[in-house]
Amino acid sequence: MRHTISVLVENKFGVLARIAGLFSARGYNIDSLTVGETEDMTVSRMTIVVRGDDKTLDQVKKQLNKLIDVITVSDLRKKDYIDRELILLKACFNEKEKPKVAGIIKKAGAQILHTTTKSFLVQFTGPQEKITALLEQLAPYGIKELTRTGKAAITKD
Amino acid sequence: MRHTISVLVENKFGVLARIAGLFSARGYNIDSLTVGETEDMTVSRMTIVVRGDDKTLDQVKKQLNKLIDVITVSDLRKKDYIDRELILLKACFNEKEKPKVAGIIKKAGAQILHTTTKSFLVQFTGPQEKITALLEQLAPYGIKELTRTGKAAITKD
Repeated sequence: MRHTISVLVENKFGVLARIAGLFSARGYNIDSLTVGETEDMTVSRMTIVVRGDDKTLDQVKKQLNKLIDVITVSDLRKKDYIDRELILLKACFNEKEKPKVAGIIKKAGAQILHTTTKSFLVQFTGPQEKITALLEQLAPYGIKELTRTGKAAITKD
Repeated sequence: MRHTISVLVENKFGVLARIAGLFSARGYNIDSLTVGETEDMTVSRMTIVVRGDDKTLDQVKKQLNKLIDVITVSDLRKKDYIDRELILLKACFNEKEKPKVAGIIKKAGAQILHTTTKSFLVQFTGPQEKITALLEQLAPYGIKELTRTGKAAITKD
C-alpha cells in the first residue's frame, strides 16, 4: 500500500540526509520524494510516497517526529487532499506518426515546449492516473528522457 | 552560484539516502531535489539544485560518479535545457479582493483547482522566474501551504 506523507522541516543543512537515512536504516523504500521551500523561507516541505502496511507507516511517523528539525508530519491518506505531479519527456515520432503523437499530447491537455525532427518535448502536470494514461498512449511511439518530479500534495480544507 | 545536476541512478533501496548523505557529509546544501521513475522502471532520475563554486561542483560530480548505483551525472549548466517547477498553494482573499486575486491567477496561466470562502487552491507549472513573479503578486493577499516540487530539467537536443 502506498502512503503519502507531508513533512514540514526546518530548512537547515543536512535535514534531507537525516530523513533519507532514517527511511533507509529502517528498510523503507521511497517511491518518490520532493522537497522545496514553502511560503516561509526557513521551512521546507517534503512530500514522500512510501510503500508499507499501516504498522510500518505508524513507525515511520513516530521516527520522523523524533527528528529535531521536523516540525509536523501529516499522513495524507486520511485527509481530503489534492495531489499533482509534473513530468517532462521527449515523445518520439517518425514523419508519418507526427500528427497522431501531437494529437495525443493535445487531447491530454499537455504542452509541447520544443519540437525537433524526431521528437516533441512535452510538459504535463496532472494527477497520477492521468500521467499514467498519457505515458501509456505515448509509449508505442517511443518515450525518451522522462523526468518526473514525484507527487506534490496539498490539503483541500 | 546555483547548479542543476541531473543524475540517473539504479532504482534501488537506499540510493537516495546515500546521495543525500554524500551532499551532507561534504557540507553541500541542496536547494531542491526531485526524484522519480524514468521510462525504464529500474532507473530513477534525480534533479538536484545545489549552491557552490565551480570547484565544489566538480568535486560533487566526482563523488557522485564513484557511487555504485549512479549511472550518469550531467551538469546542466553547460547544456541547452528546459526546466520547470510545479507549485500548489492556497491563495487567500477577503470578499472584496476575490476578483483581483482570481485575475492574478488567470493572467499567470495558473489553474484554480478548488475554491473555499477564504482561498483558492492554485496549481501552477512554469520556469522559476514565472513562479517567483506569481508568488510576489499573491503575497500581499496571503499565501498558505505552499508546496513546491523543486526543479525538473530536461535537455533540448
